[in-house]
Parts: sequence; C-alpha cells; structure tokens
Amino acid sequence: MSYARQMLDTYPRTSGLDADVLAAAIDALTDCVQACTADVDADLSEQDLAEMVTCIRLCLNCVDVCTGTTGVVSRQAEYDAAVARPLLEACVAICKSCGDECERHAQHHQHCRVCAEACRRCEQACRNLLDIMK
Amino acid sequence: MSYARQMLDTYPRTSGLDADVLAAAIDALTDCVQACTADVDADLSEQDLAEMVTCIRLCLNCVDVCTGTTGVVSRQAEYDAAVARPLLEACVAICKSCGDECERHAQHHQHCRVCAEACRRCEQACRNLLDIMK
Amino acid sequence: MSYARQMLDTYPRTSGLDADVLAAAIDALTDCVQACTADVDADLSEQDLAEMVTCIRLCLNCVDVCTGTTGVVSRQAEYDAAVARPLLEACVAICKSCGDECERHAQHHQHCRVCAEACRRCEQACRNLLDIMK
Amino acid sequence: MSYARQMLDTYPRTSGLDADVLAAAIDALTDCVQACTADVDADLSEQDLAEMVTCIRLCLNCVDVCTGTTGVVSRQAEYDAAVARPLLEACVAICKSCGDECERHAQHHQHCRVCAEACRRCEQACRNLLDIMK
Repeated sequence: MSYARQMLDTYPRTSGLDADVLAAAIDALTDCVQACTADVDADLSEQDLAEMVTCIRLCLNCVDVCTGTTGVVSRQAEYDAAVARPLLEACVAICKSCGDECERHAQHHQHCRVCAEACRRCEQACRNLLDIMK
Repeated sequence: MSYARQMLDTYPRTSGLDADVLAAAIDALTDCVQACTADVDADLSEQDLAEMVTCIRLCLNCVDVCTGTTGVVSRQAEYDAAVARPLLEACVAICKSCGDECERHAQHHQHCRVCAEACRRCEQACRNLLDIMK
Repeated sequence: MSYARQMLDTYPRTSGLDADVLAAAIDALTDCVQACTADVDADLSEQDLAEMVTCIRLCLNCVDVCTGTTGVVSRQAEYDAAVARPLLEACVAICKSCGDECERHAQHHQHCRVCAEACRRCEQACRNLLDIMK
Repeated sequence: MSYARQMLDTYPRTSGLDADVLAAAIDALTDCVQACTADVDADLSEQDLAEMVTCIRLCLNCVDVCTGTTGVVSRQAEYDAAVARPLLEACVAICKSCGDECERHAQHHQHCRVCAEACRRCEQACRNLLDIMK
C-alpha cells in the first residue's frame, strides 16, 4: 500500500472523496513527476537532441503542474473546486500533450516509452478524480 | 529591473506575449510564494493558532499553485493555452481565497496584511496575463 | 518496478552509481515527500494542535529538502559530489529530526506513525546513497 | 522593500539571525530560481544546443536546490544548523558551478550573462548567511 493511501486511511477527519480514487491520483501524479524529471535528463543525453527539445519542455511543464497539483489534492480539508478543478484540468492537458510527444519517440528511446506510460496513467487518474469532484 | 524581465528581454526568440504583462505576472507569482511561505511560519507562531488553520492551509495551496504556474509561464516557447489558462485560473482562485482569508486577520497580524497584499497583486497580475492570452 | 527504476534501466548512458541504491533513494525521497505533505494537513486537523507545531514545521522542511534532492539525484549525468553530498546530508538530518518528532506522536496519531516510517526509510536510503558516492 | 523583508519585519517572534542578511539571501535565492528557470528555456532555443547541455543540467539542479533552500531558511522558528548549513553549502556549490558555466556562454548568449549574475549574487548571499549561522 502506498504512503499516500496509508496517510488517507489514518487521516483524522472523514473526507468527502473516495480514498481509492484520491490515492490513485496522488500516486500517479508522483510517478509522473518522477518519470518526467528523469526523462528530461535522458533526453539531454541523446544524439538526436534537437528532436527532443519539445519533449524536454513538455516534461518540465508536466513536472511543475503535477508537483503543484499533488500538494493541493493531498490537502483534503480545504478542498475548493474553484482551485482543484482547473488545476486537475491543467494536469490532464499537460499529461496528454507530454504523453503524446513521448510516444512519438517511444520506438527509438525506451525512456520515452516509460515516460509516456506514466503520463497516460496520470492523465486517466486525474480524469477519474475530476469525475468524483463536484 | 527584475531578473524575470531581464531574462525576457534577452530571450533568443520573440514571444507572442507582452513582456511587461508577463514579467509582472512572474514577479507577482514569485512574491506571492515568498509571502505565503513566510506567512505559514508566522501563523504557526501565533497565540490564536486554532484561528489560523484555514489561513495556513490556503497559504500552502497558494505556494504550490503559484510555484507550478511560475515555471510554466516562464517557459515561453511551448505556450499551450489548454494548460496555461486553467493553471492561471487556479492561481486567480487560490490567490483570491488566500487574500480574503489573510485580510480577515490583517488587523491583529501584520504578516497577514503583507501576505494579503502579495496575494491581491498576484491575483491581478494573473488576470492581466489571462486577458492577453488567447 | 517503480518508474524511478524503469527510468534508470532505460537511461542512454551508463551511470557510475548502483541502480538499486539510487532507485531506492529516489523512491524513498518521493514517499517521504508524500507522507510529510499529508502529515502537515493531518496535524492541522488534530485537537492538540499546539502540540503539533514542531511536527508541522519539520514536515514542511522535510518536503522542501527531499523534493530538491529528488531532482538533483535523478539527474545522473552531472553528478557533482560538492552539491549532491551536502544535499543528501541535509536530507539525512531533516529525515532524522522529522522522524524523531513524528515518532513522539505515533501512539496517539496514526498518521504520525506512518510518516515516521517514511522518514526513517528515507534517512536510511540517503545514507546508503551517500555511502556509494565518492 | 521585498516581501521577504516585510515578512521578516512582521514576524511574531524575534529571530536569532540578522534580518538584512536573511532577507538578502531569500531574495537572491528567489531571483536565482527565476533566472535559472528562464535560462533553461532560452538555452533550449539556441542554435548551438549541443553546447548548452551542461548549462541546462546545472540550471535545473540550481532551481531544485535553491527552491528547497528558500523554503527552509524562510521557516525561522525551527532553524537547525544540521539541516540549514549543508543545504546552504549545496547552494553555494551549485551556484558556483552554474555561474561558471553560464559565464562561459555569456558573450554569445546574453541570457546566460544575466543568469550568471543571478547565480553569483546568490552564491555570495548564501555565503553571508552561512557566516552568521552558528
């Protein structure tokens, strides 16, 4: 069980949100940050560097958006849809773009294949969280 | 002149966005992160701690959203309205809530007065950036 | 297998560091950020809030130090012991303090017990990484 | 007056550290993060991209270390030299390396000249803070 899930299960208040969906989103956001951070560094080591510039920029944006979102969705007590919804929408959008770009390089760069998978899972987990958030 | 502005003025490409508005937003986001980080610590030192819990949580969210947004809007070359717009909307929303909450405490806690001002300026600067972004 | 490990295994260069130790450190740092972020929010919901102030502050510091360290150790190609060593030493120190403080509250607050465990594992994983770094 | 300084001046406790030195460090750290974030994006837009890879990696590390350090030194109440000192030493080391590398490109890339200046100021400000910290 992830620490995100253990922390939700020991939270002193009851949350309005489904713990499975929320923990899955936090874990997927965290994984996506990990993969995109490493993918930037791997891209910078490739021979076809000029082809990787868009991928690097999108991964950097993905790290920033997903890191900020992880913090906000982890703070359950002050959930405010006016903040959390657009933030998750930004996450879905950047994970989609970043996943698409990584997939374009997946055949010749295995690190991009792994990163694309992390982006796809994060995109879906954020959509699932948006669905249960009023 | 801020480093944000100097970096925009020496950027190798021409940006589609007005440099005054963009630099003002980056500076205001950065100031807001600085103020909210310090305000959390100041709130934790107050006698009326139980009254400050909402303020602490909103400041923590404000730090996370504004930090992520600073990174994304600083990366000019890959501007994608589908990411930048909801992110700036999340910023406007959290700066509004956090500014309102800080203002409630402004009379008895001067640090909250300063923080409220930083949130208000950031809210406005993000609105201005949203206005020029298609 | 974690994304950190998969990214290491698909990295285009060979790294000077043992992938097991490095991946374990990245995963433990990430888990520690997750646990400490959630623990701050949980602490803020407790009745004995005044007793939790030190715990909150140490968790906030732990999030900041571990987040910065994760980025640096994930960027393998430019390892510089003059940067990475003191950073990991700061991590070991804050994980130790934060783990000790969380443990003090572990009996009455289960979230502090979980967080203490994440801090302990991170402290050990950073020590292991320091050991293999010249 | 920067927000960092205003927040120090309205802090409810008295701090053990000189407010001028501390505020200067927080401002320089914040400026350095701003400059290095923008410099990565500018570097990625240059024709001689392959020459800029080291600069990009050092700037990314500098952003991570300085961001983490800003948070920790902003939280005055729990200053622990065992954490703050190695963290500031890591900052000094990365600002030195990153400033040196940016300076190598300063003649042909003005953004690297600006970034080198931000790194130098941050290196010095962190040294000054280390000097007054026992």
